[in-house]
Amino acid sequence: MSGCPYFEKKHLLFKNKPPNTEEDEDDSQAGVNKASRGGIIYGDYLQLDKILTAQVLQSELKANKIHDEHLFIVTHQAYELWFKQILFELDSVREIFISGHVRDERNMLKVNTRIHRVVMIFRLLVDQFAVLETMTALDFFDFREYLSPASGFQSLQFRLLENKIGVPDNLRVPYNRRHYRDNFKGHDSEMLLSTEQEPTLLKLVEEWLERTPGLEVDGFNFWQRLEINILDGLNQEKEKIEKMPDSEEKEELMAEMVKQRELFTSLFDEKRHDHLVSKGERRLSYKALQGALMIYFYREEPRFQVPFQLLTSLMDIDTLMTKWRYNHVCMVHRMIGSKAGTGGSSGYHYLRSTVSDRYKVFVDLFNLATFLVPRHWVPKLNPNIHTFLYTAECCDSSYCSSDDSD
Amino acid sequence: MSGCPYFEKKHLLFKNKPPNTEEDEDDSQAGVNKASRGGIIYGDYLQLDKILTAQVLQSELKANKIHDEHLFIVTHQAYELWFKQILFELDSVREIFISGHVRDERNMLKVNTRIHRVVMIFRLLVDQFAVLETMTALDFFDFREYLSPASGFQSLQFRLLENKIGVPDNLRVPYNRRHYRDNFKGHDSEMLLSTEQEPTLLKLVEEWLERTPGLEVDGFNFWQRLEINILDGLNQEKEKIEKMPDSEEKEELMAEMVKQRELFTSLFDEKRHDHLVSKGERRLSYKALQGALMIYFYREEPRFQVPFQLLTSLMDIDTLMTKWRYNHVCMVHRMIGSKAGTGGSSGYHYLRSTVSDRYKVFVDLFNLATFLVPRHWVPKLNPNIHTFLYTAECCDSSYCSSDDSD
Amino acid sequence: MSGCPYFEKKHLLFKNKPPNTEEDEDDSQAGVNKASRGGIIYGDYLQLDKILTAQVLQSELKANKIHDEHLFIVTHQAYELWFKQILFELDSVREIFISGHVRDERNMLKVNTRIHRVVMIFRLLVDQFAVLETMTALDFFDFREYLSPASGFQSLQFRLLENKIGVPDNLRVPYNRRHYRDNFKGHDSEMLLSTEQEPTLLKLVEEWLERTPGLEVDGFNFWQRLEINILDGLNQEKEKIEKMPDSEEKEELMAEMVKQRELFTSLFDEKRHDHLVSKGERRLSYKALQGALMIYFYREEPRFQVPFQLLTSLMDIDTLMTKWRYNHVCMVHRMIGSKAGTGGSSGYHYLRSTVSDRYKVFVDLFNLATFLVPRHWVPKLNPNIHTFLYTAECCDSSYCSSDDSD
Amino acid sequence: MSGCPYFEKKHLLFKNKPPNTEEDEDDSQAGVNKASRGGIIYGDYLQLDKILTAQVLQSELKANKIHDEHLFIVTHQAYELWFKQILFELDSVREIFISGHVRDERNMLKVNTRIHRVVMIFRLLVDQFAVLETMTALDFFDFREYLSPASGFQSLQFRLLENKIGVPDNLRVPYNRRHYRDNFKGHDSEMLLSTEQEPTLLKLVEEWLERTPGLEVDGFNFWQRLEINILDGLNQEKEKIEKMPDSEEKEELMAEMVKQRELFTSLFDEKRHDHLVSKGERRLSYKALQGALMIYFYREEPRFQVPFQLLTSLMDIDTLMTKWRYNHVCMVHRMIGSKAGTGGSSGYHYLRSTVSDRYKVFVDLFNLATFLVPRHWVPKLNPNIHTFLYTAECCDSSYCSSDDSD
Repeated sequence: MSGCPYFEKKHLLFKNKPPNTEEDEDDSQAGVNKASRGGIIYGDYLQLDKILTAQVLQSELKANKIHDEHLFIVTHQAYELWFKQILFELDSVREIFISGHVRDERNMLKVNTRIHRVVMIFRLLVDQFAVLETMTALDFFDFREYLSPASGFQSLQFRLLENKIGVPDNLRVPYNRRHYRDNFKGHDSEMLLSTEQEPTLLKLVEEWLERTPGLEVDGFNFWQRLEINILDGLNQEKEKIEKMPDSEEKEELMAEMVKQRELFTSLFDEKRHDHLVSKGERRLSYKALQGALMIYFYREEPRFQVPFQLLTSLMDIDTLMTKWRYNHVCMVHRMIGSKAGTGGSSGYHYLRSTVSDRYKVFVDLFNLATFLVPRHWVPKLNPNIHTFLYTAECCDSSYCSSDDSD
Repeated sequence: MSGCPYFEKKHLLFKNKPPNTEEDEDDSQAGVNKASRGGIIYGDYLQLDKILTAQVLQSELKANKIHDEHLFIVTHQAYELWFKQILFELDSVREIFISGHVRDERNMLKVNTRIHRVVMIFRLLVDQFAVLETMTALDFFDFREYLSPASGFQSLQFRLLENKIGVPDNLRVPYNRRHYRDNFKGHDSEMLLSTEQEPTLLKLVEEWLERTPGLEVDGFNFWQRLEINILDGLNQEKEKIEKMPDSEEKEELMAEMVKQRELFTSLFDEKRHDHLVSKGERRLSYKALQGALMIYFYREEPRFQVPFQLLTSLMDIDTLMTKWRYNHVCMVHRMIGSKAGTGGSSGYHYLRSTVSDRYKVFVDLFNLATFLVPRHWVPKLNPNIHTFLYTAECCDSSYCSSDDSD
Repeated sequence: MSGCPYFEKKHLLFKNKPPNTEEDEDDSQAGVNKASRGGIIYGDYLQLDKILTAQVLQSELKANKIHDEHLFIVTHQAYELWFKQILFELDSVREIFISGHVRDERNMLKVNTRIHRVVMIFRLLVDQFAVLETMTALDFFDFREYLSPASGFQSLQFRLLENKIGVPDNLRVPYNRRHYRDNFKGHDSEMLLSTEQEPTLLKLVEEWLERTPGLEVDGFNFWQRLEINILDGLNQEKEKIEKMPDSEEKEELMAEMVKQRELFTSLFDEKRHDHLVSKGERRLSYKALQGALMIYFYREEPRFQVPFQLLTSLMDIDTLMTKWRYNHVCMVHRMIGSKAGTGGSSGYHYLRSTVSDRYKVFVDLFNLATFLVPRHWVPKLNPNIHTFLYTAECCDSSYCSSDDSD
Repeated sequence: MSGCPYFEKKHLLFKNKPPNTEEDEDDSQAGVNKASRGGIIYGDYLQLDKILTAQVLQSELKANKIHDEHLFIVTHQAYELWFKQILFELDSVREIFISGHVRDERNMLKVNTRIHRVVMIFRLLVDQFAVLETMTALDFFDFREYLSPASGFQSLQFRLLENKIGVPDNLRVPYNRRHYRDNFKGHDSEMLLSTEQEPTLLKLVEEWLERTPGLEVDGFNFWQRLEINILDGLNQEKEKIEKMPDSEEKEELMAEMVKQRELFTSLFDEKRHDHLVSKGERRLSYKALQGALMIYFYREEPRFQVPFQLLTSLMDIDTLMTKWRYNHVCMVHRMIGSKAGTGGSSGYHYLRSTVSDRYKVFVDLFNLATFLVPRHWVPKLNPNIHTFLYTAECCDSSYCSSDDSD
């Protein structure tokens, strides 16, 4: 960045490398000289020789240089750069979960910070469409033909990203009856296959949610207490209604009562849950769902504040990915039309169909909003007894012997 | 981009290259196979082998991998990618001016669109700070030492960009008494020197403004008419005031009148203008200033609508560059502190000093707001006579014999 | 705004009102005293006594004040304020069209500027969701019950806005088999009915497009020339293909040729167009479609530059409205869930169904991208003859006798 | 909002109010009928009769209606609406601190969430300038005169906001030698005075930081341990350097060592701190500074994760307020010019001078970046002993007897 003095002489003394011998001049300006003595300069550090020479216009190669192709390339490269950063953050978070370091609750700061960073990047990526939208359909038409058969369907990183978060193969919208992996070959195809087999962020969060303190049947036993409270609450309401004189209103309230009872019966019905999971309408295990709801209800407890933020950020990622997809659809509509009324089918319609809850990995976290209950139905915590929500899990030797570097 | 079907089979028939023989399958999916027969696939098109392998963490090389350095690198690379795009747009616009193609008013669409695109990119770059701001001072401290002596002061592209727009050497804020070009050597330094000598965007816009139709002394003679109208207006006001009975109010109005007269006298005083130019407080020539004011006043005339937008976009660029600088300052404050109260001096203060009107290249376009007058003081156009504002300049053989490709 | 010195003493002399008698102090600070002598102060000007007392929490009235209801109210009020501004701009633009002032091409600046302003407001409104998203489903649950039966379905301004732009009654997605106007009564319902009957922005733009210079059959006759050129082009391609030796490739190209011919035949088939219009798949008249395509192809001609921008901005509005809808859907999903798997139906699904091309008023402008052709197929203009694209329409007495104020 | 089904029938049974008798129709649509039976409809809920009738154009009253004044009014009203929301959040957070509820660490979620919401609102307010920037200086000139003497200097809410966060009277930049409170009279002036005397957010955060667990002299005694570690560290470095053979490098390192020692000596020098406080260069008490640095260094400890986020959000607010100021300056420059070179002075320069670290309330949190040290210099925690960082403060009867509603 221009004139960025980040690199100002920090504390020379803190450096591990052998001290060097330049005069006491400002580091940021002495770069050129210093670099010759062993340091690194900006352009080399960022490998700008690679980054800034990677813009080759196909139209220019075909002797018909079209100005706007440059924007097209740079925009896609910027997307891919940020995809790489997202993958980097996702992998580090997945590693914290896989290694078990997440059990040391100190590591929740890292998890939370990095997931939040992914949110901020996706927010930028959604905004970034505004730049490409300065290209019109007519500008695009001028070089479109030269790109064939290159296609965004071939973005390896985006597919990796979907897989690592947890978009499952069987919920993907098929396009022309071809498998998404058929767009890739060799090493790329293998990478995709292996990410389908690795633990996804969804899976890792699920396991973590299943361990939510308070779910233990021989402990606080949140789920049973909640069921009892809700049934009690519903029964009391029912009694109140039954005491009412007969009326249209009474009938209506009774009908509503039946619905509510059904709704909550479904919540506590594990078989029904598993059925919904098998259809892809729910994605978390039954136990994980309980953990999530528990974190929702007790979000203010010290130990749940950060986990609650994490669940919120995971919904943010889902929402932003779907907004990204939708912004993409909008741009494609502008660039190539929908072919409506021409008899043709188009990628526009395929893309549109991916703006779907099927692609929302953490859909359960949204849908739990259906099962909220009044605060006074939530099982009471007595902090004098249930100190588990005031005490974080201590660093455990089996997990935390290594330092917290990554 | 993911699943982008831009490249869907356009009109095969329009292709210049020899038709190929694949089955009638969707291009965007058949990419892998097709590519082997001569097309290009996504990753190769974008040269992702270069883009996505350019992230080498110095901290990792020094065996102390710090997670956040990856973000630091990717963010700076994204900035440099977009700087390249801005330079590409700027160069194309400058070329349209330099070649004289701008005289064919059809080319104003290109000029306007590309300058507007630069605006949109700068808007993104300002927003992009939100991503880097997810890194804290403490995260940065962990790898800061490894970067030395690399520095954003060494961003060649940003300096080129400043030079090409028109930040002049003599208005730059000196930093530690060193010339900005001393941060560069060899070819880079020569490139910078040559951009200092090439016509800047400011200079080219200035020449274009000087040709504003309507300024001709033997024609509409805008400047003289305006001076007459303003003096008339002021005189009429003066007479009105003089007829008032003596009062504090009258005195005040008279004093105000004197100020106004001085203000406008300064506007019509070429020597004073040149003096301000010599001090760097004005940047446009006297004639160009007249053209700009004329475009302001007659912005609704068909021929001036697009030029008026251009002037607005140029101010947008100035404003956004200065906002970018300020956002940069804010982040540096957060990352390394201001060293206030420590006796140290810092790059923070240098950067802060560049958030200055000295770096606003088109400062005159802002400051013309001081010289606005009521609509009825503006010299009237009679459209039946002054058709020049209804008729664009026709394609002229000397300029327009070449096609409009670039 | 804080400390905004906009109102600094401009040019006292320009004021129409009688001069007043205060000492020469700075206006912006002397406000309090001055106001007592006839001026206006900030809070009164903005009627903050109304704006800032309009936040009454239902939960507080019901003696159960819920903090987040305040945000809910303020956010919706901000939306309504901006909807009012959008309606104000739309009405002024529609008035320019309805009155015929648009024929004086000087007024295109106003049209363009105001439509662009609507774009910028919608962009803000999309971003504004980020603020409301700081409220969680659980916070919302706490006061949701108190709002009944208030509903965003009852936002009069949003329905007016849709109607004035041109969302037609018959393309609206029905919700529970009720007409959207049933949510309103009395004066509001009448206003909605009357906006259904007034000329919409779509209709007005359509009429304007139908007058596109160059469409005249006895003049440039764009449509016929284009048809001829395209048919010629296709024929030449066909001949080339026929000369090829028999092969799979030849067959494929022939098949593609047939498709292209069908595609373009459909473009020049007025009956087919009318059929698509009757189904709601096209919205513009056949003539208007021709005008739009002509502006697309000749967008660089001086007279078409601003019209081309206008068409682009109209697509921006459509896109942003649809993004607004989608952002809305995403928030609703988070707040109340989708009720997936519960047997319930929900407003979530209704809202989702409005994120549809049926609500894209200017859908034809997007879909014209399907009918782009190579530049050399576009009928040539000879600027020496076809000066109509270099000469704006002069102010015409019947339309322009009034001044251009509004 | 349009078609917002938030208010869909939640759980009728949960309602406290007496059940009503309508048929089982969808609430969101039955609004009109229901409202007549006791509910509330959208427009009444939002008091749109007040909000949407508060746009009175001064230019229209003066019989010279200027279109853009409407935008000017609506934009300022939107700012004031959001200022009200910010004040509402700030007041609630201050109340949590003042009442002592913050000692129950469950309340940190609320504090954090609401401060984060203020951040999100300020982010929107910075973006909101893009809408007003669609008005040009020329449009503004047309109605500027009618506004006199109204001025943004008279925005009561912005001044309240500054005062409540902690901009002190004595650090305000004076404007024309007048006190900021002189722009207000009567009740408004008293409100301002009283906010100067109430505990500011800065003061409350300061007190909270002073209680940071771990600072206790008879406990972990962070500050003394840190001083010892740093001095040890510096001494070890010094010894290493002294063992080096004499050289230029050695001298340089020795010089640097002296600087570092001075820097850190200043950190541990309470008198120096108090001196800087008296000059306004530091704002927090010495003890609070220690707490902040402790939170920085141990941010990953479970108990400090949320406090660390809070400190980050407080910096965000400072940064965004200063960006807001700077965006404001940029717009004012565009609207009225800087009067550079005209001999006039202007509000532009006043506003510019408020974009200063003097207005950064939490400046110390930024400047602590100057005092970071390598991780291994930070005093080690032994979690088995120092459980205070793993255990949140329990709900204490004296503070938490009331429920947590607000």
